[in-house]
Amino acid sequence: MSCSSSISMEIADKETSQDNVEQVELLSGVYDHYDGVIVEMKEAMDPKEFGSLLRASLSQWKQLGKRGIWIKLPIELANLIEVVVKEGFDFHHAECNYLMLVRWIAETTNSLPANASHRVGIGAFVMNSNRELLVVQELSGIFRGSGVWKLPTGVVNEGEDICEAAIRELKEETGVDAEFVEVLAFRQSHASYFTKSDLFFVCMLRPCSFDIQKQASEIEAAKWMPIEEYADQPFVKENSGFDYVAKICLARANDSYTGFSAKPAYSASGKRTYIYSKLEI
Amino acid sequence: MSCSSSISMEIADKETSQDNVEQVELLSGVYDHYDGVIVEMKEAMDPKEFGSLLRASLSQWKQLGKRGIWIKLPIELANLIEVVVKEGFDFHHAECNYLMLVRWIAETTNSLPANASHRVGIGAFVMNSNRELLVVQELSGIFRGSGVWKLPTGVVNEGEDICEAAIRELKEETGVDAEFVEVLAFRQSHASYFTKSDLFFVCMLRPCSFDIQKQASEIEAAKWMPIEEYADQPFVKENSGFDYVAKICLARANDSYTGFSAKPAYSASGKRTYIYSKLEI
Repeated sequence: MSCSSSISMEIADKETSQDNVEQVELLSGVYDHYDGVIVEMKEAMDPKEFGSLLRASLSQWKQLGKRGIWIKLPIELANLIEVVVKEGFDFHHAECNYLMLVRWIAETTNSLPANASHRVGIGAFVMNSNRELLVVQELSGIFRGSGVWKLPTGVVNEGEDICEAAIRELKEETGVDAEFVEVLAFRQSHASYFTKSDLFFVCMLRPCSFDIQKQASEIEAAKWMPIEEYADQPFVKENSGFDYVAKICLARANDSYTGFSAKPAYSASGKRTYIYSKLEI
Repeated sequence: MSCSSSISMEIADKETSQDNVEQVELLSGVYDHYDGVIVEMKEAMDPKEFGSLLRASLSQWKQLGKRGIWIKLPIELANLIEVVVKEGFDFHHAECNYLMLVRWIAETTNSLPANASHRVGIGAFVMNSNRELLVVQELSGIFRGSGVWKLPTGVVNEGEDICEAAIRELKEETGVDAEFVEVLAFRQSHASYFTKSDLFFVCMLRPCSFDIQKQASEIEAAKWMPIEEYADQPFVKENSGFDYVAKICLARANDSYTGFSAKPAYSASGKRTYIYSKLEI
């Protein structure tokens, strides 16, 4: 075996002689902190050979008391997926270039972590000193051609901070630079795309520039509009969610509302995070 | 062809005679509002036959000006994945029992929606009238065996409201019934599991019952603890994120802090949602 995805492991009682050592080829995996094994396949392998190795490995991992077995297959090794499924694995999640499969091999209750369940979006509330709001009309989506002026919106990328995403999306859609001020409100909805849920954060930003350069690919039109005119649009008044958010924006414009500021902090495992909360504690 | 995953479609200029009608077998798909096609495979098919159908269908969809082609394969049809990948599809997302693949066939910029990027969790801040907090020690995870008392926490399921998830998780872990009051703060962190990001909402709940019945599978111990004693734990004081959240909880206990309440509202497409914001607008 020259394949890098297998290792040779000696299974032997320490009392037995060298002659009794059983040489077994196993898949190479990394042990995690939850009695799990993560196997990341990188090189091509004959599916039958891979199946034999997988079965032997599963048997060994059971003996070792392992619980969750993860197998990550790059899209180039799609021919191995069927073999893994036949060994009782489920899909766990996928990104464009890989599929993660998992099987719980312990007798105890399955405590595998859930797949990502939410997409996250932002809406940018940006007002100038004339109480004008930066608004856009979009080229696609449900508002296309409706004449409705709306807040610039966008998707928060995996690994991106909400406060950074709001600044980035505003710049991309309108060319306007801004600083993050606070989250005014957020909305949770379900079945937004396929089965996934959605969290949408209305972010107040302070503009640092005012000239509009609209994004050709996504934005039909962009302009500064008096905030009362925005809130008075029939579409906004007729939709409870839009109307409520417009009222929050108006209250914020009148300095009678404060949202959640972003405070950098470190998690228990030492990662930098942001905590969003009221400032005055 | 008797397979339900194919349809017969007539491709013909309306001017041509019946004899010139070209009979082409195509995969059956649903057209979406974004010039996309969603094909949901349900029955087994020979991989070679499926490949031919897919190629003919792609050619037809291109002529029709379609852009994003989605193919959903249940795990039972894992043997068809390789065929789809060979036709230039990427993985988009997966759940335990299916894989969604996608290919952008238009000449324009790919505007396919992103996969879900975040997992969502809750922490429950539950205080009785003696200023005692409901706290737990967990059987697994990074706090196992540490002696640290923490807020009950849990994962928000796909399709589940944050305010409902907090009540459910509290009940499961401690047996205590409660009502949702407000979101005190939230934290965003990254690379929490594999590459996914994480949003964690600290929810204040008002207890309706007080007898503790701890969950055997996940909870080592649960009790009511004076809130100052919770905040004074060395681990809490030494970790900026925990210390900050404890200060928020203390401020809320002293009625000098308010978070975001949950207000039902309807989205533009008529879905029920919750908007979390300050009440006083």
